[in-house]
Amino acid sequence: MSTITDNLSVVTRTAVTFLPEGVRVEVDAGTTILQAAHQAGIQIDAPCGERGRCGKCRVRVLEGSTGELSAEEVKLLHATELQAGVRLACETRVYYPLTVEIPEGSRNLAQRKATAELPRVITPDAFTHKRCVHVAAPSLASADLRADLTRLREAVPQFTTANVIAVRALHAALLAGKYSVTAVLSGDRLIDIEPGDTTGEHYGLALDIGTTSMVGYLIDLNSGQEVAVCALPNPQATFGSDVISRIEYAQRNARHTEALRKSVTSGINHILQSVAKEIGISTRHIYQMVVVGNTCMSHLFLGLDPVSLGHAPYTPVITDAFSLTAGELGLDLHPRGTVRTLPNIAGFVGADSVGVLAASELEQRAGLFVAVDIGTNAEVMVGKDGKVIACSTAAGPAFEGAKISQGMRAQAGAIDGITIGEDLFIHTIGNQLPQGICGSGIIDAIGEMRRVEMIDASGHIADPEDLPELPLALRDRMQEDGIILVWAKESGTGQDILVTQQDIREIQLVKGAIYAGIATLLEKLGHTPEELDGLIIAGAFGTFINKEHALRIGLIPNIPIEKLIFLGNAAGAGAKMALISQQEFTAICATAQRVGYVELAGDTTFSNYFMTSMMLAPGCEEE
Amino acid sequence: MSTITDNLSVVTRTAVTFLPEGVRVEVDAGTTILQAAHQAGIQIDAPCGERGRCGKCRVRVLEGSTGELSAEEVKLLHATELQAGVRLACETRVYYPLTVEIPEGSRNLAQRKATAELPRVITPDAFTHKRCVHVAAPSLASADLRADLTRLREAVPQFTTANVIAVRALHAALLAGKYSVTAVLSGDRLIDIEPGDTTGEHYGLALDIGTTSMVGYLIDLNSGQEVAVCALPNPQATFGSDVISRIEYAQRNARHTEALRKSVTSGINHILQSVAKEIGISTRHIYQMVVVGNTCMSHLFLGLDPVSLGHAPYTPVITDAFSLTAGELGLDLHPRGTVRTLPNIAGFVGADSVGVLAASELEQRAGLFVAVDIGTNAEVMVGKDGKVIACSTAAGPAFEGAKISQGMRAQAGAIDGITIGEDLFIHTIGNQLPQGICGSGIIDAIGEMRRVEMIDASGHIADPEDLPELPLALRDRMQEDGIILVWAKESGTGQDILVTQQDIREIQLVKGAIYAGIATLLEKLGHTPEELDGLIIAGAFGTFINKEHALRIGLIPNIPIEKLIFLGNAAGAGAKMALISQQEFTAICATAQRVGYVELAGDTTFSNYFMTSMMLAPGCEEE
Repeated sequence: MSTITDNLSVVTRTAVTFLPEGVRVEVDAGTTILQAAHQAGIQIDAPCGERGRCGKCRVRVLEGSTGELSAEEVKLLHATELQAGVRLACETRVYYPLTVEIPEGSRNLAQRKATAELPRVITPDAFTHKRCVHVAAPSLASADLRADLTRLREAVPQFTTANVIAVRALHAALLAGKYSVTAVLSGDRLIDIEPGDTTGEHYGLALDIGTTSMVGYLIDLNSGQEVAVCALPNPQATFGSDVISRIEYAQRNARHTEALRKSVTSGINHILQSVAKEIGISTRHIYQMVVVGNTCMSHLFLGLDPVSLGHAPYTPVITDAFSLTAGELGLDLHPRGTVRTLPNIAGFVGADSVGVLAASELEQRAGLFVAVDIGTNAEVMVGKDGKVIACSTAAGPAFEGAKISQGMRAQAGAIDGITIGEDLFIHTIGNQLPQGICGSGIIDAIGEMRRVEMIDASGHIADPEDLPELPLALRDRMQEDGIILVWAKESGTGQDILVTQQDIREIQLVKGAIYAGIATLLEKLGHTPEELDGLIIAGAFGTFINKEHALRIGLIPNIPIEKLIFLGNAAGAGAKMALISQQEFTAICATAQRVGYVELAGDTTFSNYFMTSMMLAPGCEEE
Repeated sequence: MSTITDNLSVVTRTAVTFLPEGVRVEVDAGTTILQAAHQAGIQIDAPCGERGRCGKCRVRVLEGSTGELSAEEVKLLHATELQAGVRLACETRVYYPLTVEIPEGSRNLAQRKATAELPRVITPDAFTHKRCVHVAAPSLASADLRADLTRLREAVPQFTTANVIAVRALHAALLAGKYSVTAVLSGDRLIDIEPGDTTGEHYGLALDIGTTSMVGYLIDLNSGQEVAVCALPNPQATFGSDVISRIEYAQRNARHTEALRKSVTSGINHILQSVAKEIGISTRHIYQMVVVGNTCMSHLFLGLDPVSLGHAPYTPVITDAFSLTAGELGLDLHPRGTVRTLPNIAGFVGADSVGVLAASELEQRAGLFVAVDIGTNAEVMVGKDGKVIACSTAAGPAFEGAKISQGMRAQAGAIDGITIGEDLFIHTIGNQLPQGICGSGIIDAIGEMRRVEMIDASGHIADPEDLPELPLALRDRMQEDGIILVWAKESGTGQDILVTQQDIREIQLVKGAIYAGIATLLEKLGHTPEELDGLIIAGAFGTFINKEHALRIGLIPNIPIEKLIFLGNAAGAGAKMALISQQEFTAICATAQRVGYVELAGDTTFSNYFMTSMMLAPGCEEE
């Protein structure tokens, strides 16, 4: 029926190409850009319900003619935006072929995933190898009485040691495979023998263990391509939501470190089973894992006592990359598969930062660059023409909801986006009833409130009397306790959800610490933020925050917006690089060794910057 | 009281020095040599109860005057023996200082143990090392924020990898030892951290797994000295007494190999606990093991399928030396301790032969030498000026009691020695009531019976009518069924214990195979047995057989008796060498690689020799 209708239809058809995806979709003339995007499977955020009220669905028309601006567009879009071709997707109809760019900020948050993109093509050359060989059968006639393993080694000279369980499987595998077998090698060690040719089934998992959540990327080690992803909350959260509370838990009882280790292991096994199931393979065909995480997460993953990370001088048990078998940790990949952690740099600059270092290519870049990984903490690295120094700022908890009166983690029901137009519009993760506010939500809120002057540069909530031009709906939200984001009757908690003056102060402290960390490292190298050639923001949080707001409130130095580089889960991307190629792994470990660590505790440069970096203004300076 | 008596005694005192021990003992004049030996703690065999009847307690007086020969000595000793100074220890009294040599054949069998003597002093340099170091404590003041492991490695640069459990113990050990710790290294791997200085507790076990019994030698790896020994029957015997029956058992069910492995493991754990208890140490301080055994025992120890050893072309799964951790095998030494097997040479020339090769220094000897390891099988190696070739002859089962009508293993109640004088006298292991006859017993029986012509050179039991000069007691023993060793009324079984004509045929087959193996290898190198510079006999069985009888029945080539070299448990000695020194281990593996294996199956030289080697005569030739 629908096919006939389509064929007979006299309605004019036209096409929209969406960037950066490059997806082209044919639509009926008169369709809105928002509807066209839906048809193309691309989610654009429209919290006001396509009513032209929130202004969240901004897109930029790069090529092609569009119709007149609607009244709503005139009201909500700035002149500079209009000049650049920005339109509201819900208001703009398509009559002629268009090329439309969807800015990061207009993406539907519930669809957003922090991807871990490789910085360049990595030639697959993993530590594990599979070799299918035909082995000569023993024979008295040809005087070949050599042992099975000797004959295998003749065919596969790459191994020098062998695991006993692999050797136990050898004779039966030779018989089952009619002397054709696949040798599984981890480095120069034989870890398994599979009958026949199984070289096609060769997978590895790159794992990023965050304090809050974990993401595993299943990689086909033959092609180097990502074939499945699975993210899960870190199950250690039941023992404490942040690093410090988990260290305290470990400290209370000698067995608690093992309890924390087992907890994260169970979560990882869930990820392993999930990705294997997704592409229909056995977890036994996952032979390798590379793990990143902050120093505490790395320690707990390995079952190392994190207690020394909890008090000065915050020394870790290990900083080196570590290698062990899956069996030693009870992980559900091939039991003799190798699990490697990337090295840590210091007690609070961990393997996740090393991953960022690798994926951002910070050391390789010519010029002056900063990389900030905003997770539970913010690790800052400055690279200048091959030299890298790093520090950690105690940034994170606020961005994960801690210390924010109605803060919560970035999960379903969390307000993760705010837009101020004629009123204040919110977006929640999963489009559920709002329960609280998460990190990107609070940045958005403060950024938007700063934009319309509901908050002044010192972080003080304005008196609505002083803002007569502000729509009444917004002025009504400015109460004694703070600024109301959601009225009780629309809230999932039955109470008003608001941003308090104290919440703003917490954010000022955090963003001050990050800014001061950046400025301190730059000063150590004799530079200022103005000289930056680029600012790289890594981490899921970084992916979800709004660039303009980050600049507006001085979370990051005030540099031209095109110098901002959002890498997504760069830590995970670094793990992928090290997983796909042993050469990359070795290079990454060497790079980590060369990083100079700057301890900010007791550093007067840092404390001076910190004192002056609280201002909610670009570059933290009064406009 | 006794002291006073001694002091006041007018009885003349004199002294006896016993060789080869070099033990000197002062005794009252008139004491018999046998009593003097007892005082010196040296056991001499006297199965007739010191009555001068069995002639078993022969000793050789090298220096000093003795009294007249007794009537019994005149009767029992040959003219050539009398010329050489041989006396019966129970008949000869000491009046003047004497130097007395006790031949192997006169030792009390129940006291005999196959020792594993090293061929030379081995400088201790084991694969495991212990290093006690003081590690600097971390300090913010001195800007030493490095990880615990980094600081440990500065103090102990020898390790490049570390076991995770060792690293887990690191922080607590540093605190417990006030930053003084002992690092335990296996090669370049850190396997444990012990608080304080524990370098004195550093042990290893050299283990010889025989088909019938196992011997473990506990070595102090600091000094290289043996500090305890424990021997046990191989518990796999419940699955089959010989190699072939165990292979058949393994073949019946895929789980049987693991059952055999667990069986031997339990026995080894018993040995480990026993030696540790004996010297009062924890088994955790045993960090290393080197294991020898025949190829099948090596396979079963590692849990490798032995089935291919059970049929032509008898190829093993592995011949290489193999290394794994104690934990992988469930062995009760330090769980991360390293267990190494010596290499095998072929399906029936195993790591035990490699041990013999090492301890006999066969490759290093200038000249032409044969080494025979007589255990369940007999492995023969010929060395000529650095070149070694080896073969295996299916020799053993008869020597372990199999195929002998009343055969049994060398355990309590087994007849292990026979002497013919005026009657036939037996010795049993543990001096218990006789139950059957073991390998050295049957050799002794046939040797003695050949000497007095009860058996002729073709192996035929003589007609007592043809031996009128033989004492009646002996002639009475020559019955239709065979020659009675023990009459029913003196037997532990309530039945006569006898050597049958068929038993003699079995021994002829076995000794023919050994002789033919030796002659075949010699011929491959263009030599004959007459040209031998020495014949080395290894193995517990070899230790216990009587040299003269072995020559008399042609078990070994007819060479001057002084060219016979009895090494005892040379396989075990080889394991000790490889345990004490990694340099020795490496050299032994290299030596094993150079051995040329000769397959006797289908070899016409061998079958020709075999046909003509049955004769019970020196050199297998009619006298």
